[in-house]
Parts: sequence; structure tokens; C-alpha cells
Amino acid sequence: MELIWLIPVAGLAAVSYAGWLAWDVLRRDPGTPEMQNVASMIFEGAMAFLRRQYSTIAVLALVTAVAISVIVGGVSEGVKDILRSGTGSNVTITYGEKVVGRWEEGLLTGIAFLAGAAASALAGYIGMYISVRSNSRTASAATRSLKEAITVSLRGGAVSGFLVVALSLLGVSSIFFIYSKVLGNPESIAPFLIVGFGFGASFVALFAQLGGGIYTKAADVGADLVGKVEAGIPEDDPRNAAVVADLVGDNVGDCAGRGADLFESMSAENIGAMILGVAIYTVTKDLQWIVFPLVLRSFGILATIAGLTSVPFFARDDGKQDPMTPLNYGYYIVSILSVIGLFIATRVMLGDQWYWFFFCGLVGITTGIAFVYITQYYTSGSWRPVKEIADASRTGAATNIIQGTAVGMETTAATAITIGLALVVSFALGDQADIPGVGGFTTGVFGTAVATMGMLMSAAYILAMDTFGPITDNAGGITEMSGAPESARHITDALDSVGNTTKALTKGYAVASAGLAAFLLFSAYLDKIKERLDIPLNEHLPIDLSNVDVFVGGLIGVMLVFLFSSLAIRAVGSAAGDIIEEVRRQFREDPGIMAGTSRPDYGRAVDITARAALRNMIAPGLLAVGTPIAVGLIFRFTREENSGWLAVAGLLMVGTIGGIILATFFNNVGGAWDNAKKYIEAGHLKADPSGPGAGEALGKGTEAHKAAVVGDTVGDPFKDTAGPSLHVLIKLLSTITLVMAPLFIS
Amino acid sequence: MELIWLIPVAGLAAVSYAGWLAWDVLRRDPGTPEMQNVASMIFEGAMAFLRRQYSTIAVLALVTAVAISVIVGGVSEGVKDILRSGTGSNVTITYGEKVVGRWEEGLLTGIAFLAGAAASALAGYIGMYISVRSNSRTASAATRSLKEAITVSLRGGAVSGFLVVALSLLGVSSIFFIYSKVLGNPESIAPFLIVGFGFGASFVALFAQLGGGIYTKAADVGADLVGKVEAGIPEDDPRNAAVVADLVGDNVGDCAGRGADLFESMSAENIGAMILGVAIYTVTKDLQWIVFPLVLRSFGILATIAGLTSVPFFARDDGKQDPMTPLNYGYYIVSILSVIGLFIATRVMLGDQWYWFFFCGLVGITTGIAFVYITQYYTSGSWRPVKEIADASRTGAATNIIQGTAVGMETTAATAITIGLALVVSFALGDQADIPGVGGFTTGVFGTAVATMGMLMSAAYILAMDTFGPITDNAGGITEMSGAPESARHITDALDSVGNTTKALTKGYAVASAGLAAFLLFSAYLDKIKERLDIPLNEHLPIDLSNVDVFVGGLIGVMLVFLFSSLAIRAVGSAAGDIIEEVRRQFREDPGIMAGTSRPDYGRAVDITARAALRNMIAPGLLAVGTPIAVGLIFRFTREENSGWLAVAGLLMVGTIGGIILATFFNNVGGAWDNAKKYIEAGHLKADPSGPGAGEALGKGTEAHKAAVVGDTVGDPFKDTAGPSLHVLIKLLSTITLVMAPLFIS
Repeated sequence: MELIWLIPVAGLAAVSYAGWLAWDVLRRDPGTPEMQNVASMIFEGAMAFLRRQYSTIAVLALVTAVAISVIVGGVSEGVKDILRSGTGSNVTITYGEKVVGRWEEGLLTGIAFLAGAAASALAGYIGMYISVRSNSRTASAATRSLKEAITVSLRGGAVSGFLVVALSLLGVSSIFFIYSKVLGNPESIAPFLIVGFGFGASFVALFAQLGGGIYTKAADVGADLVGKVEAGIPEDDPRNAAVVADLVGDNVGDCAGRGADLFESMSAENIGAMILGVAIYTVTKDLQWIVFPLVLRSFGILATIAGLTSVPFFARDDGKQDPMTPLNYGYYIVSILSVIGLFIATRVMLGDQWYWFFFCGLVGITTGIAFVYITQYYTSGSWRPVKEIADASRTGAATNIIQGTAVGMETTAATAITIGLALVVSFALGDQADIPGVGGFTTGVFGTAVATMGMLMSAAYILAMDTFGPITDNAGGITEMSGAPESARHITDALDSVGNTTKALTKGYAVASAGLAAFLLFSAYLDKIKERLDIPLNEHLPIDLSNVDVFVGGLIGVMLVFLFSSLAIRAVGSAAGDIIEEVRRQFREDPGIMAGTSRPDYGRAVDITARAALRNMIAPGLLAVGTPIAVGLIFRFTREENSGWLAVAGLLMVGTIGGIILATFFNNVGGAWDNAKKYIEAGHLKADPSGPGAGEALGKGTEAHKAAVVGDTVGDPFKDTAGPSLHVLIKLLSTITLVMAPLFIS
Repeated sequence: MELIWLIPVAGLAAVSYAGWLAWDVLRRDPGTPEMQNVASMIFEGAMAFLRRQYSTIAVLALVTAVAISVIVGGVSEGVKDILRSGTGSNVTITYGEKVVGRWEEGLLTGIAFLAGAAASALAGYIGMYISVRSNSRTASAATRSLKEAITVSLRGGAVSGFLVVALSLLGVSSIFFIYSKVLGNPESIAPFLIVGFGFGASFVALFAQLGGGIYTKAADVGADLVGKVEAGIPEDDPRNAAVVADLVGDNVGDCAGRGADLFESMSAENIGAMILGVAIYTVTKDLQWIVFPLVLRSFGILATIAGLTSVPFFARDDGKQDPMTPLNYGYYIVSILSVIGLFIATRVMLGDQWYWFFFCGLVGITTGIAFVYITQYYTSGSWRPVKEIADASRTGAATNIIQGTAVGMETTAATAITIGLALVVSFALGDQADIPGVGGFTTGVFGTAVATMGMLMSAAYILAMDTFGPITDNAGGITEMSGAPESARHITDALDSVGNTTKALTKGYAVASAGLAAFLLFSAYLDKIKERLDIPLNEHLPIDLSNVDVFVGGLIGVMLVFLFSSLAIRAVGSAAGDIIEEVRRQFREDPGIMAGTSRPDYGRAVDITARAALRNMIAPGLLAVGTPIAVGLIFRFTREENSGWLAVAGLLMVGTIGGIILATFFNNVGGAWDNAKKYIEAGHLKADPSGPGAGEALGKGTEAHKAAVVGDTVGDPFKDTAGPSLHVLIKLLSTITLVMAPLFIS
């Protein structure tokens, strides 16, 4: 237990560092009064939305917590102690006396759920607070230097990143500590009691990502359609009542939404890995196997603090440096230090077969880096895929969409192969570890868990880069609306373009981590089922695809992923309709707005967008939560003895596969369409050499550009609503089935 | 064996009936000289493409046949006899002496492959021949009466339908007869020897559907872009050199492609069901279980002959009848007679527990009818989904695409739930049948097989309605280009609209049959694996989703479905580019074409389209054939003992699920976009009541209509290339893994 002290140290270090970053950002020049004026409207809109959203979520969460406590208490049999018998390779892990009563189990699960929900919401709220305070300071810094602008925006974003990681770590470790040491339960069963924490995190993430994703794209699409298309005024024009809502949207989607997404990833993955550790702990009697995930995360935090602090030292102000370069250097430092941390943690904690798990962790870190490059290849204007889409825009919107769809579907190959390779290799490596009495399957799955943890070591850094996106985007909008000098706009444009890349990277990273984590969370679900069915924990429980219940469960799983996306996309259209009505009404009732003599009522537009987004997130949210429960219950009561949990297992696994692939498609196709439009706007596209006007540049205002704008608009709800919501859905399926497992067993 | 005589009788009846239909169509008035002129260009283009396509396929098929023989002969151990031991419920089905040597097995599999490929090609060729002879006769009939036009077009289409069903039935039954009775092999192993027939059918279907699908949409998109968009001339304008290629395309996609698709469904499903029957035959010693699928198919043929003959009696010429009505009445007759046939076949052949299987068949027939209604709801202009897309067109192409995508994804729910329900219910019913010595799993899977067979009883009728589509579409084009009277155009327009519906129905039917058949084909794959691994045939072989190889195989499976679609869609764009170049060249080099004084070189455009389509079908074709083999070999040689066939099993099952869902999305979204455009053209869409120009009708030529045209164009390669090719891919995965199974076993 040499390293366990690292957990509170790293957690508190992360919180302190976030505090220092926040202090550093807030003490800086908030910009001209015009900048502060715009920024304060964004600030108020964002905080109002967040308060409204969290109130809705709080009500839903309280109801759900009570429901969980009642359901788990009502259907479970309580938690039995986990015992070991036999020696050497003949060890069997069975169950002893009941040590936690059923109602106590229900209560503890409900409390853990609330703790997870609250920690996620708190991280989101504070992160957002600093994020919407950083935008005008970035705009102001941009009037002085690129280096300062990068520093402010990255530090503002990092507050969110560190809080998410720290609160996940502190939350999981405290609740584990309380449920084991304070309440006196065996360490081997405590991980099963804290699964509610992961579900709470998923629950908040689902609604945060859905609500934020719907908000941001409804405002974006609505503002464009009613402003650019109907009224013929430019983007970000202050006469458009929806323009502030659009700037607010960037924050609620990318900062609060993605933060909750990765909070969920880390929490669920930590808890899943701890459950896997139980099977090894029971044999080796070494608690290190259970707390290892938390220690590795702590090393990740320390590596990230060092990497992030180093970024300003790499930034140069010579006007030639790509702003992505210092960010990349920082990421390399995080990766190198993560490898060192991984080495120490595995070496010290995981016994004499540690090196196999060290290699597993390396696989995970490498996978993270691979995704950074894959995403860039498919969504950046420098490579074939985006150029192909731009070329197809020459013949109109239809060919732009067709080619974009083809490219988007193609990107699933690199994703699936990389995730598949990472899973098989880390499983095979873990399988090699020879721990007496522990089967190769258990060490193999633990290997995939270590790979996932290795990958997520850099999560705070990735999140800092992600939140960098909306801050620089907002800074650009503020610069535009406050009439700041051209040079500042130049700097914010450069940063905005980097922000687009970092946002896309984060999505790729989130999908990959969801893919890797799926396998270990699925094993945790099976462990839970074994415990209920009194099947020894180290016996293998096959989920047979040729079983009709599993197969049909899988069919429903992939269907769920499509139907959920349908509802999420539809929600954007519906909410955008409300915004369009409102802006039209303001134009109609006050002609002074169009003339530029009166100021539109931004606040009302923000408010209407918020209401519409929250109203529209309910249907997909209920679908996500309700489907696995409905499938489990229907199969349990209409089919055979084991059909309930088997159908849910099929739904979970096959649905996860479908979700990974579909989310990858949505994220990448949206990014590629966006950058194809930017590629054309930069004047890189020439007319078809064999067609009319051969060789002319087809820039802004041409038919090709209009076609690319259609693609970009189509991609908006794909990449910012459906795709990110699918990451969350995948993990929600894991956590909800983990918590509700007793309900599916006859 | 009372009913076995029905097989040759029904097969020959179908061929004779097809001959009579062909004679009846060909003896009719081929129309005015102008009509015949256009028709002959279509005829020549279609036959030229088919010859070229079948030559390419023939070369590929010969190489593949040799490869199969060598691979199966090289890696297999020969086929062992199947023996029964024990009594009552303690029966075990194991393997005896080798009765077929490994090289003989390889040779027989290769020959069966060629037979399947040849039968499929022959059915496609003759069907197409009559189809492209029926179009001008339909155009001519339309100058006289609707009733005659329906009769001609439906009979022309039915030739293809009957030949497909008859040649599949006769092919499978003859090769079964030859491989068992003539060559003297036990009936219990003959089904394993004829799996090559199914793979041959799949192989031809893959390339026929891919090549046809690419051809039809490349010609369509290319003709539109270079004609309507660039040159500003109307659709079907004779000055456009690509217009004949477009008319040819309708035939090669919908007639030849879909025919091969359902030929494959029926053949693969028959063989799979016969393999399942082996497990019951070995216990009961009653050959009926093996030949039952063939007898049921025979009843289906007889029912279809009666139903089809009745259609003209329901058609009225009062100008008020929807042409869909007589087609629907005919379908009801087929369904009712199928139920009677099902009753007789199960009652006579399937022992004293026959009624369970009778119910299973009813489930299948009901599923077929359900799909007819589901597809209509989602793709016809009378219901919410299409109206929503039309509404969204008011705000432009982007919202049309976004809404369409949401609707398309929504349609997967009804499909997945219906297929899932049919599978679970038919499995549960079959499971109830109590046959001593045969497990519930075996009778359950046999139940799903009977449901699939029940559904496919009406296949010839559905195919007749499908081929009706391109015939009436062509008749419309011929009427337009030959300057026939307005009244004839009115009739062909009405028929064309019905044709759009029937084409959509057939795709839904094909997806549903692929979904139902997947489960039984998967069981056949497992039976083949058991035979190789010497696991008793009635022992259960679980495919464990928590096994990393199965899971990663599944991930690759869904990825394959997306990547294959990407290549298919991309192929359309690439081939369309070639056509555009050619039409531009003709316009440039002969200004008389645009002036209307010279005739464009249609033949060259047809030829270039054909070359481009065939060149572009190679990449997706190789991907489809190569991926399962590559995955099997990679996992076999780099992982553990059973990893090869396990990873392939995961790929097959999960890939099938992904394919069903994605194909449903493609088919339905394309149909819905098409009909949203038609809805607007019919003047049904009004301007937004709260926006500018409230309440005005937004018809042809408005921005809303242009937006709907973009959606329609995007949907073209989705619904006519990617979707139908995915049906084939799903079944190809089943047949290729069935044949190549020995390669994946260490």
C-alpha cells in the first residue's frame, strides 16, 4: 500500500492547481467595456441555462435515486461476503454470509448515485463559471499577443479539466473509503456498493450532454437560418437576437457537456476496474489490485500538471508558429510522464508479473496518441478526406453530402481497427500474467482495464484542450461584436481553428475510451450477475450470441443507438424552430432592430433556447434510461429463466459496438464537413479542370461554397449533439445495467 | 415422403408459367416505331451491360471456384458420416467414418458454387431480357387502358420473379438429389456438401447488386448533374447523352440486382434449413425434415401462380382505382393460399408436433405483411414521416437532410422490433415442439427457419411487383421520349408511382428475410464448426460475447458494414464523374446536339457507364469477400486455438445486426426523400404560417422544391446502391463463412 497516499495528494493537488489557474485567469484584464458587455451577456445566459438545466436534472436525479434505492432494496437479496477456498490453481471464489442487507444495499446505492451526480454537476458548474469568465480575457489578451491568448484560454479550459478529473478521483475514493473503512464492509464488496456513483455520473452526463448539445446546435442552426438565410445579415451580427444564445451554446455543449462525458468515463471505468480487481484481490489478499486504478489516475494528474504548466514555455510570438505546436509539445510531456508514472505504479503495486500490465498501459497511452492523429487526418483540411468533400461541393450540395457520408463511414475503419487492436493486444498481454489461482480471462480483462486507465491518464489535458475550444470561439465572437482591432481578430481566428481541431480530438478520445472501457464494464456486469446467481466469481459465464434472447437484445441495442440519434437530431430541429419564431417576432415587433437603432432582447432568446433544449432532451433521455430496463423486464417475464439478463447483456455489448461506430461517423463527418467549408473559404478549391470556368478559385459566395455550407449545417447536430450524446449513452448502458442487474434476474 | 413429388412439379410449373407469361408479353403490340426505337436502345444497352457484367463475374467466379476447391480440399479433413447413439432424450449425434474424401469435398463444393452462380445468372439474364422487352409494350398498352398496362408490366416482371424462385428451387433440389442419390452419399451429409451453391448465389448477387446499383445511380446522378444542373435541360431530354443509360440503369439495378438478391436469400435459407433438418433427421430417421423447406417453397410457387393470375380480374378501368389496389388483392390471395399450403405441408410432413411449426410459419407470413405496411408508412407521402421532411424543406437543403436523417434512423425501430419479435416468437414456438432426442434449441432454431420459409413463400409475387417498377419507369421514359399522347403519360405516371412503392416494399421484405435467415444460417455455421471439431451435433456451442475475439470480431463486423457502404456510395460518385465527362465531351465536340439537330451518341454513354460501374464494383466486392477470410486467418494465426472461428462468428452475427439496421436506414431514408420531393411537386406543401409568404403553396421551382431535390439526390445512392448491396453482404457473410469454415480452425 506504499502509494495509496498519492490519491488524496494528487486529488488535492489538482483542486489547488485548478484554484491557482482560476485565480490567474480572473486576475487578468477583462478587456474593454464593450468586450465586458458582450461577455457578461454570455456569462449570464450560460449560468442561467446551467442553473435551469441542473434544477431539471436535480429533480430527475432525486426521483431516480429514490427509485434505485427502492428497486435495488426490493429485488436484491443483499450483498454476500466473497470468500476464497482451495490453493494454487484450484482456487474457487464463492460467497459467504450476507454482510449487507438488501435495504441497506439499496440505500447505499442511492446515496452513491446522488454523490456521483452531485460531483459531476459541481465539476461542470465551476468549470463553466471559469470558462465563461475566460473568454473576454482571452479577447483582451489577443489584442496584445498570441502567447498570452493561448495561456489564458488554455488555463481557463484547464480549470474544468482538472476539476473533472479531481472530483471523479476524490469522489470514487472517498465513497470507497467510507463504504469500506467507515461502514466496516469488506473491501471486496465495497466496489459493488459504489456502482451507483458511476450511474449518477452517467445520468448527469446524459442530460448535460443532451441538453447542452441540443442547446448549442439549435441556437447555431436557428441563428443561421433566421439571420443569414431569411434576413440576409452576416453571422454574429448583433442585430440577430439569437447571436448571444449561439455563443452561450458553445460553452454548454463543449465545456459542460464534454466535461460530464469524461467525468463519467473516468468514474465508471475506475469502478469497473475496481470490481475486476476484486477477483484478484480475493485470491492474492493484496488490496493494491483494487486501489490500483485510483493510484494510476493520481500519477496521470501529476503528469498533466507538469505538461500543462510547460505549454506557455513552448509558445512563440513570432507569428509563424502554428498554435497547435505548443499544445502538442505539452501533450508529449504528459505522455512521457504518464509512462514513467505507469512504470512506478505497476512496478510497485502489481506483484512480480507487473510488466505485463505495464505493457497494457503502454498500449492504452499509444491508443490515445493514435486517436489524436486519426482524427486530425480525417477532419483537417490538409489531407485527402476533407479535400474530397470540398471537390464534391463543385457539383452542389447533394454531392457534398454524398461524399461526406462516404468519408464519414470510411473513418469508422481506422477507429474500429485501432480499438480492436488495443483490446486484443492488452487482453493477450494481461492473459500472460501468471497469478496463481487467477485465470487468464480475469488477468486479460484486467489488462484491458489497465490499457483504458493508461489512456485516460491524460484526460485532464485533453479536456483542457477541449474547453480551450469554446473559450477561443467566444473570444472571436466578442472581438467581432466589440469592434476590437483586426490584429486581435487574426489571433482569435487562429486559435478558433485550433479549437476546432482540439474539440474533434476530444471526441475521438472519448469514443476510444468508451470502446476500451466497454469491455471491462461488461465484465463487471457479469461479475454482478454471478454474485446474484451464486456462480463462483472466477468461473466463466458465457453470453451466447446464438441464444435468441442475446441476439434479439443485440438487435434492439443497435436499433436503440439509431433511434436515440434520431431523437437527438430531431430535438435540435424542434428547438431551432422555437428560436426562429422568437427572432422573427422580435424583428416584426420592433423594426428598430433591423435598422440597428434598438438592441434585440438577447436574454429572451437565450431563455427560450434553454427552455426548448431542456424540453427536448427529455424524450431521448427517457429512451436511453428506459430501454435497457424495459428489455430486461420484458424478456424476464415473457421468456425463460435467464432471458432477462441475457437479453440485456446482448443489448449492452452489441449496442456499445453500434454506438462506437455510429458516434465515430457522426463526429468525424461533422468535423470534415466543417473543415471542407473552411477549406473553400480559404480559397483552396479550384473549378473542375474539364468543366465550365476550369481552374478558377471557388471561394466564399460561390455555389460550391453554398453547397459546403449545407454540409456544414447538416454536420452540426451530427457532431455536436448526436455523436457526443452517443458516447454518454454507451457508458450509461453499462452503468445502468450494472445497477439494475438484480431486476433482470428471475 | 408423400409430398416430395411437389418439388419438381412446382419447379416445372413455375418455369412453364414464366414461359407462358413471356409469350403473352412478347406477342403484344410493341408500340409505335418511335417507342420501339427508344426501347431498342434501352434493350441493347441493358443486354450489353449484362453480358459485360456476367463476363466479369464469370471470370471472378471461375477463379473463386478453383480457390474454393483447393482451399476446402486442402484444409478440410473430409466429411464424416453422422451417427446416432442412445435412446429417448439421451440421444447423442456424433460422427463416424469419413465418407467423402477431402479433395472430393473440395471438388463438390466448387461445382456447387458454380451451379449456384450459373443458376442465379441465368435467372437474372432471362428475367432482364423479358423486362426490357416489356417496357415499350407497357407504353403501348398505356395508350389504350390502365388495366392492360398493369397486366403487361406485372406479367413482364413476373417472368423474372418466377424464374428466380424456380431456378433456386430446382437448383438446390437437383444438386441435393445428385450429391445424395446419384453419388451415393448419406442424405445427412449432403446438405453440408451443397453449401457452395448458396455461396455461388451470394457471389453473383453481390456483384450483380453492386454493379447494377452503381450503374443505375451513377447514370441517374450523372445525367441530372450534367443535364439539369449544368446544361439547364429537363429530365429525360433526348439531347442528354446519358438519358438512355439512366433508363437502362433502372433495369440492371431493380430487376437483375434484386432478383439475384432474393435468389440468394432463398437458396441460402433453403440450404441452411436443410442443415438444421439434419439434426432432427438423424434422430427421427425421417427425411421429411431435410426436404421440408423445398416442399414449402413449392406450395409458395403454386400460391403465387394463382395470386398473380388473379390480378387482372381486380383491375378496373374507371380511372378512380389506385393501381396499388389490384396488386394488394393479389398479395392477399397469395398469403391466404400460402397459409393453406403451410398447413398441408406441416401437417403431412412434420410429425405429431406439426402445429408448433405451422404457427412458426404463420409468424413468418405475418411478418412479411407487416413489412409491407411499415415500409409504406415510412416512405409514402400520406403519412407523418414524409410530410415532416417536406416541411423541413421550407428552410432549405440542410434541414431537409437533417430531418430526413432523423426519420430514416427512426424507421430502424419498427424494423428491429418486428424482426426481433418474429425471431423470439418463432423460436419460442419451435422450442415447444417435443421431439424425443431433439433438444429445444434445435427445434427452436428450426422454428425460426420455418418462419423464414413462410415469409419467403410469396417471394415470386414480391419480385414480380419489384420488377414491375423498372418496367413502368421505362414505359414512362419511352412515352416521354416518343411523344405519345398525354393520356398515356398519365397512366404511366400512376404506374410509376406505384412502382416506387413496390420497389421500396421489396427492399423492406429483403431486409426482413435477411434478418430472419441470419439466425438459422448462423446455426448452420455452428453445425459445420461442430462437425470439424468433433463436437456432437446436438451439443450446444456457445459464442461468448465476453470473449475478446468475439467482441472484436463484432466490432469489425459493424465497421465492415459501414466501410462497405462508404465504398459503394463513393463508387457511384466516381462512376458518375466518368459519365459527366463524356456528356460534356459530346456537347463540346458536337454543338448540334444542344441545338437538337444531331442525335447524341447514347451507346457510348451506356458503354462508359457500364465500364465505370464494373470497375468500381471491384473494391467493395473484394472487401466483402476478403474481410471475413482475413479476420478468420489473422485471429487463427495470431491468437489462440479457437480464436479464428470465434472472431468470424462475432463478425458474422454482429455484422448482420449492423447490416440490417444500416440497410433499413438507407432504404427508407432514400424512399422518404424521394416521396417528400414528389409531395412538394404535387403542391401539397404550404409556406410556414408564421414566416414570410405564409400559407402559399410551395411547388415545383421554389427553394423548398430545390431543397427536396437535394435530399432526393442524396437518397439515390443510399436506397439503390448501398442499401440493397448491404442485404447481399449480410447473406454473403453467412454463405462465405459456411464454406470457408475449415480455414478458420486450427
